[in-house]
Amino acid sequence: MIYLDNAATTMRKPSCVVEAVAKALTSLGNASRGAHEGALNSNRLLYRTRGKLAKLFGCPGSEQVIFTNNSTEALNIALSGTLKAGDHVITTALEHNSVLRPLYRLNREGGVALSIVPADSRGCIDYSEIEKRIVPSTREIVCTHASNLTGNLLDIDRIGAIARVHGLLFILDASQTAGAVPIDMAASGISLLCFTGHKSMMGPQGTGGLCINGDIDVEPLKVGGTGVQSYLEEQPREYPTRLEAGTLNGHGVAGLSAAVDFINATGIDVIHAHESALARRFYEGVVRLPGVRVYGDFSSRDRCPIVALNVGDVDSALVCDALARDYGIATRAGAHCAPLMHRALGTEAQGAVRFSFGYFNTMEETDAAIEAVREIAGR
Amino acid sequence: MIYLDNAATTMRKPSCVVEAVAKALTSLGNASRGAHEGALNSNRLLYRTRGKLAKLFGCPGSEQVIFTNNSTEALNIALSGTLKAGDHVITTALEHNSVLRPLYRLNREGGVALSIVPADSRGCIDYSEIEKRIVPSTREIVCTHASNLTGNLLDIDRIGAIARVHGLLFILDASQTAGAVPIDMAASGISLLCFTGHKSMMGPQGTGGLCINGDIDVEPLKVGGTGVQSYLEEQPREYPTRLEAGTLNGHGVAGLSAAVDFINATGIDVIHAHESALARRFYEGVVRLPGVRVYGDFSSRDRCPIVALNVGDVDSALVCDALARDYGIATRAGAHCAPLMHRALGTEAQGAVRFSFGYFNTMEETDAAIEAVREIAGR
Repeated sequence: MIYLDNAATTMRKPSCVVEAVAKALTSLGNASRGAHEGALNSNRLLYRTRGKLAKLFGCPGSEQVIFTNNSTEALNIALSGTLKAGDHVITTALEHNSVLRPLYRLNREGGVALSIVPADSRGCIDYSEIEKRIVPSTREIVCTHASNLTGNLLDIDRIGAIARVHGLLFILDASQTAGAVPIDMAASGISLLCFTGHKSMMGPQGTGGLCINGDIDVEPLKVGGTGVQSYLEEQPREYPTRLEAGTLNGHGVAGLSAAVDFINATGIDVIHAHESALARRFYEGVVRLPGVRVYGDFSSRDRCPIVALNVGDVDSALVCDALARDYGIATRAGAHCAPLMHRALGTEAQGAVRFSFGYFNTMEETDAAIEAVREIAGR
Repeated sequence: MIYLDNAATTMRKPSCVVEAVAKALTSLGNASRGAHEGALNSNRLLYRTRGKLAKLFGCPGSEQVIFTNNSTEALNIALSGTLKAGDHVITTALEHNSVLRPLYRLNREGGVALSIVPADSRGCIDYSEIEKRIVPSTREIVCTHASNLTGNLLDIDRIGAIARVHGLLFILDASQTAGAVPIDMAASGISLLCFTGHKSMMGPQGTGGLCINGDIDVEPLKVGGTGVQSYLEEQPREYPTRLEAGTLNGHGVAGLSAAVDFINATGIDVIHAHESALARRFYEGVVRLPGVRVYGDFSSRDRCPIVALNVGDVDSALVCDALARDYGIATRAGAHCAPLMHRALGTEAQGAVRFSFGYFNTMEETDAAIEAVREIAGR
């Protein structure tokens, strides 16, 4: 199988990730829950990994790195934990349902006002539209770093600057970019960064996190045991304990930690350059094929390694199935949990076939995918 | 190291668990997010594992098995998802903070009334005290299956019968018993069962679940992407999707699935008998030692394999440290996230040293632990 569904999850993990998880499964105790070697091993692992992640994302303070089981959980915590009745929040049409559904719910049930900056037919937003929507009750801007459908990157420095000028929180959904595109929370003015471990971080599923830049109050979504301050009726107020109830996924974090080591040893710029080159090659190979329509803005070289397309009016699921069945190429059709993006592109009914590239993909695989699209489009 | 902290987490996992996770890390895609082999493998794994868990716990309907990342998350969902302002809930003094803190919060912020059935100095409750607390607004009873401090089991058939007679929901925290003590939700009248994968289930951290017995409305704690019904602004209402937002921990579930296979192949009765025999042997070996005080009710043979004790007035942490340092025995001192239980036992200041046995422990290890306690008590 040629796996080109890396935006859903990276199926191939670095071997050090597999080894780290396997080792952890025979040696880790429960962090903060004992003073013996097993528990201390777990404590040390979590502490070290928080430090690595803080460094990777430019988050001041490793105790401000919260482990979650995915990006969706981090986003739910970030949004529910900072917005209250009467607040107003601004987002974009590029968002995944992991941003939209929490916001819709806060809007419907929590008295939070919501503005959505529209996207044009290439999936781009007009940044001045963000500023136009700011009102006195605006509390924060939340957006994705990259559309999971088109691969367009948002200019987070620009959005961070808008947030800074207006005294707003800036919450970034880095699900598609963490580990594959350089991110510096401090430099870009990102208040809260939400990431998942199993996509471009190349770590295990069941990992992810929320990084908190500075003195920001985020209320917990879940409360429970923490292994410390057990006689408090409330969740302890200190980070990271405040937002981490129950036993953490230490086995998964062991893999995530190894994945960060792999990323650092390889170089995030090298990873980004390789993936971008594959995606650009694929784009160039298919964009002029008769009947093929590619979505997104490819005028910028700086993109996420995703190319979404359709073949004529054919249902995207049929093309995706043909790719899998006839060519052994794994892609993803349908709505990609990005309803507003599909509406903006006019692909709500047809969906789109998404090709997403990862570090372990090769030029040969890319060329095979181009050839497959050429043949399917020629049928 | 002699690992006797299995109530915190089972450090040694069956080798099939390690192998299943390692294999998944190289072959799993993202469930419900694609139609290629990788994604389908993940779908099948999740579906099969739901079925195995439903069978293990006597839950009618595998689609009513929800994956969570631990028991705390399952309990937060179960409690926040069923209680609303004006409701009354009954719990016990045996509970872990994973039950108490969500209830305290609902009481403080959510307008939910809370009654706590007290425990005596052996850690036992008077079941008639549950019924005495039932009022017209009582919505549910929530309790642990076993104290994580004393190992006392609660009579869940009896509590289930009370709930049934009064038309209440019965929520069970099976964190200490799932996989090690037979549980039948249907027979015992358990409405919602919350379990973790990394303790007596012998699976990976980052796994657990909520099993829903019948037509019970549980509102989601987190919302987000589901891979299906992407154009709905709300989370889909069908289980399991309703309560599962974002990518599941497929790698962990692969290990949990193998762990259930191991439990079934070994026999849950065999596991329970072995662990009980070790705990009973340890209890008999230490209970009459001068200066040693054992907590809990050992009149019943049917217990969780936990023995908590203190040596004179010595701080439990010092005894725990001596066990680790001088004998290489891992136990757990302190409060065990069970504040009301410690208050009932009169051990709030001293804490207690908890020995908890697992399937991979041996008689020799147990005897070594007895000898270590004898020596420490004799100092």
